[in-house]
Amino acid sequence: MRVTILGAAGMIGRKLAERIAITGQINGQNVDALTLVDVVTPDVATDFKGTRDAYAADLAEAGVAAQVVADQPDVIVHLAAVVSGEAEADMEKGYRVNLDGTRALLEAIAAHDGYCPRVIYASSLAVFGAPFPAKIPDDFHLTPLTSYGTQKAMGEMLLNDYSRRGILDGVGIRFPTICIRPGKPNKAASSFFSGILREPLNGQEAILPVADDVRHWFASPRAAVGYIEHAATMDTAPLGAQRCMTMPGVTATVGEQIEALRDVAGDEAVALIRRAPDPAVASIVAGWPRDFDTARALKMGFRAEKSFQEIIAIYLEDEMGRTALTGAAT
Amino acid sequence: MRVTILGAAGMIGRKLAERIAITGQINGQNVDALTLVDVVTPDVATDFKGTRDAYAADLAEAGVAAQVVADQPDVIVHLAAVVSGEAEADMEKGYRVNLDGTRALLEAIAAHDGYCPRVIYASSLAVFGAPFPAKIPDDFHLTPLTSYGTQKAMGEMLLNDYSRRGILDGVGIRFPTICIRPGKPNKAASSFFSGILREPLNGQEAILPVADDVRHWFASPRAAVGYIEHAATMDTAPLGAQRCMTMPGVTATVGEQIEALRDVAGDEAVALIRRAPDPAVASIVAGWPRDFDTARALKMGFRAEKSFQEIIAIYLEDEMGRTALTGAAT
Repeated sequence: MRVTILGAAGMIGRKLAERIAITGQINGQNVDALTLVDVVTPDVATDFKGTRDAYAADLAEAGVAAQVVADQPDVIVHLAAVVSGEAEADMEKGYRVNLDGTRALLEAIAAHDGYCPRVIYASSLAVFGAPFPAKIPDDFHLTPLTSYGTQKAMGEMLLNDYSRRGILDGVGIRFPTICIRPGKPNKAASSFFSGILREPLNGQEAILPVADDVRHWFASPRAAVGYIEHAATMDTAPLGAQRCMTMPGVTATVGEQIEALRDVAGDEAVALIRRAPDPAVASIVAGWPRDFDTARALKMGFRAEKSFQEIIAIYLEDEMGRTALTGAAT
Repeated sequence: MRVTILGAAGMIGRKLAERIAITGQINGQNVDALTLVDVVTPDVATDFKGTRDAYAADLAEAGVAAQVVADQPDVIVHLAAVVSGEAEADMEKGYRVNLDGTRALLEAIAAHDGYCPRVIYASSLAVFGAPFPAKIPDDFHLTPLTSYGTQKAMGEMLLNDYSRRGILDGVGIRFPTICIRPGKPNKAASSFFSGILREPLNGQEAILPVADDVRHWFASPRAAVGYIEHAATMDTAPLGAQRCMTMPGVTATVGEQIEALRDVAGDEAVALIRRAPDPAVASIVAGWPRDFDTARALKMGFRAEKSFQEIIAIYLEDEMGRTALTGAAT
């Protein structure tokens, strides 16, 4: 199996490439060739024993999509995107990368007769827009309230139409908010959801800008990689014409996150969280979804963690080299 | 008010232009300039007393959208599209005209600082895909099962995003199946819905390829023009971020259509309908929606007929010069 990852320099792309490199497999199937692409040159997966390649390219630029599919990879993981804040601030760039880039990929695939790769498309909870029911079902309408969400929803529709036509075999994955993200805080409004756990676990102070009763939808980086691995080899026939699904995850309030931290790391860790209410952040987060009914993805075999304790345990294992609780999803 | 109609050579475009030309108004507001555009040169609305222009152009070609918005019309009615069957048969053409053409228009508008026209976008019931509830509500998810429906749904999302950003003031209209279409039968699978009424009213035989219990959603050409007129001048503030609505219409079975024909034109007209079941047509139509709850559009002031008798009466008045029943919607 030949696998190409677009957006391979991002957090999930790196972790996926690393896992394929180490195991030589994706979900139990051997990977013979691994190609990593991003706008900056991704790290070459040097552990990988098969044919490997890594290069910098912008999918939205003329000819790049044709280059990506020239060797007809069996699985294309399309994670390349301009993120929410940037797509809102730079409308032209967001549409160019997120919409035109995706369409260029699909059209480049269509140009190869008899070629029908598995295409795994990274979508987002941003395809949904308030008002929400308490638990968002699989057939909830897509009413994005950002340009990023609009672009992702349009990409989902393209993926469905190109799959229906037999040009490709698409699986669209709406990722939960990934927690605990390794590394440093960033300027995303969602940054604190990881920060209030990651910083205390590393003995550092963290700022909490919202109230304890703010609820959101989470999964670990390991679960995120697991979705993609599952999507790479799953039977797509039961999906029919609707290729995109919200992924399973854990619904939790900030208060529940903090109690899970206390369970794992004690009161001294919790004491490192400093409450500094920020009405601007609170207002953004108030428009975000809180809970999902992901029956469809679960039925299709996608899995995530079952508790926030598990999510924290995975961070300790994967990022801090500590063995913690058992039962973490893989 | 300056009005530009894209797709002005089509049935609805011609009727709208004619009405504006005769009244000099759109929904009671004076129209000073009327520009008609289509891929073939539309008839110049010679009755129109204001500034008039008509030219042939393809919105998807470079520079055309810029030309369309160069004089900053106050209202742009965007009816230009490749229809369902053609968009399915010619994928490249469908995406080029229906998606790229629409996007080119929106981007050309965005290029004018401080310009925010009312854009009326013709969408379609094809944005919905089976399985359906008995009555499709306003918040039903968009799961198109054709490339045409995909392109129209993507156009709706663009209209919402560009409206949210204040670049334009969009209203998306999902037209019912228009009945009775004047003129000759065409190759559309829906052609018989008009044909079984129009041909008998003109003393000619009509073929009915489906069973009498097939149900669908209809409005007259006059109601279609009425939607656009209303959309041109309505207060869009209550629409919020969701600019697109299914238009009110009449749900009717083929059997109910036939009984309405009997009411208006008697048994001799009904006797001209010849049943010739066509499984291919029956199969296509089986995937179409049957009934809608259009509470939102009704609340926003959109109106259609209340019965099939009214729909037939409008055909007699508007196409055959006969006065028939009263109470037809305008």
